[in-house]
Amino acid sequence: MKRLCRFGMLLLSLCMLPGMAQAADPLPSWNAGASKQAITKFVADVTRKGSPKYVPPAERIAVFDNDGTLWSEQPLYFQFVFMLDQVKAAAPQHPEWKDNPAFKALQANDFAALAQHKKEALELLAAANSGMTVGEYDKTIRDWLASARHPKFNKPYTELVYQPQLELLKYLRAHGFKTYIVSGGTIDFMRPWSEKVYGIPPEQVVGSSQLIKFELRDGKPTLVREPKIDFVDDGPGKPIGIYRNIGRWPMLAFGNSDGDQQMLQTVAGRPGGGLALIVHHDDAEREFAYDRTSHIGKLDKALDQANADGWTVVSMKRDWKRIYPGGK
Amino acid sequence: MKRLCRFGMLLLSLCMLPGMAQAADPLPSWNAGASKQAITKFVADVTRKGSPKYVPPAERIAVFDNDGTLWSEQPLYFQFVFMLDQVKAAAPQHPEWKDNPAFKALQANDFAALAQHKKEALELLAAANSGMTVGEYDKTIRDWLASARHPKFNKPYTELVYQPQLELLKYLRAHGFKTYIVSGGTIDFMRPWSEKVYGIPPEQVVGSSQLIKFELRDGKPTLVREPKIDFVDDGPGKPIGIYRNIGRWPMLAFGNSDGDQQMLQTVAGRPGGGLALIVHHDDAEREFAYDRTSHIGKLDKALDQANADGWTVVSMKRDWKRIYPGGK
Repeated sequence: MKRLCRFGMLLLSLCMLPGMAQAADPLPSWNAGASKQAITKFVADVTRKGSPKYVPPAERIAVFDNDGTLWSEQPLYFQFVFMLDQVKAAAPQHPEWKDNPAFKALQANDFAALAQHKKEALELLAAANSGMTVGEYDKTIRDWLASARHPKFNKPYTELVYQPQLELLKYLRAHGFKTYIVSGGTIDFMRPWSEKVYGIPPEQVVGSSQLIKFELRDGKPTLVREPKIDFVDDGPGKPIGIYRNIGRWPMLAFGNSDGDQQMLQTVAGRPGGGLALIVHHDDAEREFAYDRTSHIGKLDKALDQANADGWTVVSMKRDWKRIYPGGK
Repeated sequence: MKRLCRFGMLLLSLCMLPGMAQAADPLPSWNAGASKQAITKFVADVTRKGSPKYVPPAERIAVFDNDGTLWSEQPLYFQFVFMLDQVKAAAPQHPEWKDNPAFKALQANDFAALAQHKKEALELLAAANSGMTVGEYDKTIRDWLASARHPKFNKPYTELVYQPQLELLKYLRAHGFKTYIVSGGTIDFMRPWSEKVYGIPPEQVVGSSQLIKFELRDGKPTLVREPKIDFVDDGPGKPIGIYRNIGRWPMLAFGNSDGDQQMLQTVAGRPGGGLALIVHHDDAEREFAYDRTSHIGKLDKALDQANADGWTVVSMKRDWKRIYPGGK
C-alpha cells in the first residue's frame, strides 16, 4: 500500500513540474505593461526557491484596501449609501441630530459635504444601529445588499468589484499568499460577502469597528452594538490594524487613496522589500475619473509619494482590459 | 500528461481511504475516558460528510485560552513575571508608581495581591514599555524568553506547554480546524513563539493589546507603544475579541478559568452546537492544584456552569498521561 501511495505522489509531482502544466495567463484582464510586469516579477522573485528575495509561504501576506481598490466607491462609499438609508430610518428617534453636519449633508444629499464629515457620519451610523445585536445588524446589511442598486450602473453593489483584482487575489493565493482586506469600512459591512465575492474569509477582513458589549439575554450570550466607534482603520490606523489583526509585515499592499498612504509606506519600507500599488481612477468612460480634488477617495499626497518613491501606479484606463466581471 | 495526473490522483485517493492509513492514536497523551471521547466524537460528528452535524472546513474554528490552558500559569502568569522584570527596570523613571497597589505588590513579591490588581498591573506594564517601537518590544520579549527560567521547573517558560494540548491542536488542524489563541495575555507577548511552539501563526493570536501610534521617524514608518491599554481580551472581552478578529462563531473552546466563562458560554450556545472544555488543575504532583480560591486562574463560576450545563471538565490528573513534552 505504501508503495502505491509513493507511486501516486511521484506521478503527481511529475505533472506539477514547470512547463508540464498549461501556462494560461493568470491575469487575463490585465493588459501587458509595466504594472502587470511589476506584479508578476515581484511574485516570481519572492516565491522562487533559491532567489535572494525568496520568502516562505507563511510570511506571504498581501493587504488590499476595499473602497476604490477592490470595488467602486463613487459617487459615495457604498457603506455610506447603506448608512444613509439606516440613518434616515432612525432619524425620528434622534432629534439631537438636527445640528450634526453629517446629518444635514445626508438630508441634502450633499455627498461632497458628507465626505468632509466622515467622522461625524460614522458616528451617526454607530448611533443608528446601536442596541442591535451583531446578528441583527448582519441581517440588515445582507437585506440591504440584496435589494440596493448602484445609481449609475443599476447593479447590486457586490457586482461592482474589479475583475482584474479578483484575478490578482486568486493569483496571489495560488502563489501561497494570504490575502487580507484592510479597509476604512467596517468589518460588519464587508464580512457578509467578502468570502463569496473575493475569496477572502471573514477572519481576513480588517476594518473599522464599533464598540461591542457582551451580555447575557435570557441566559444567551449576545453581542450588542454600542453607539461608539471603537477603531478607525484608515490612514495611520491601517498599519495599526495590520499589527493588531495580522502581526506580520505585509509584502504587498494595494490602495487607491490618501487613506492608504501609511499602509503603502509600511509595505514599501518592509525589510527585504515590498510592493506598493495604487489604483488610479482615470477612466470616466468605464468607471469614474478622479484623484487630487475628489471628496471620495482623494488621491493626492499618496500620488506624490508614489511618483517620488517609484510605487506602482495602476491606470484603470491603460492597465485594465475590463473593469467589472462580465463587463467591459 | 493529463491522464498521468489523473492516475496519480486516483492512486493517492486510494491510499487515503479510511482504513488504509495507519490508525495511530493522534492523541497519545490523553488517557482513554469521557474527556477524550467527547473530543473525538465531536470532531468525528462535525467532519463526517453526511452527518447531520457536518460543518464545512472553512467554518471550523477552535479557540484556546493560553495561560493555564495551553501552558502553565503558576505561581504567576508568565507575562507578569516578564512584567516584573520590566517594571523594576523602569521604576527609577516613574516615581508616581509608589502608591500604585500593583507596584507595591510587585516590590513585595506578593503575587496574591498582584493578581488582585490585574488592571493596575497591566497599566504598569503599559507604562514600563511605552515609547518603545513594536520591534524593540518584540526583541525585549524574545531576549527575556530566551534567558528566563521557571522557579519550580527550572525550564524556559516556552517548554512548560501541555503535551496533550499540542496533540489536540495538531489533531484539530488535521481535521480542517483553524486553531486560534484567545488570551488575556497580550498579542505582543505570545506572537514571537506561538507558531514555533503551538503551530499557531501570529495572525491567529487574539489577545489584549496596548494602544499603538503610527509615526514617521526619519521618514520610516514606525509603530510606537503608547502608555495605555487598548483592549482587554478577558472575560466578556473574549467573545468581543473573537468577533473583531475572527468574525465566525467558534465550534470548540478550551479554557481553564472564570476569565474564559463568556467565551465558553458563547461556544456552548452556538446554533448547531459547540464543544466547551475546561482544564481542571488538580495535579499538584506533576503541575499545580488550584481552582475556586486561587488568585491566579481562579476557576469557580465557570466550574459551576460546567457542572450544570454539561461542559467537559478535563482533569489533568486523570485525563492527561503526561503534562509537558518529554516529561511525565
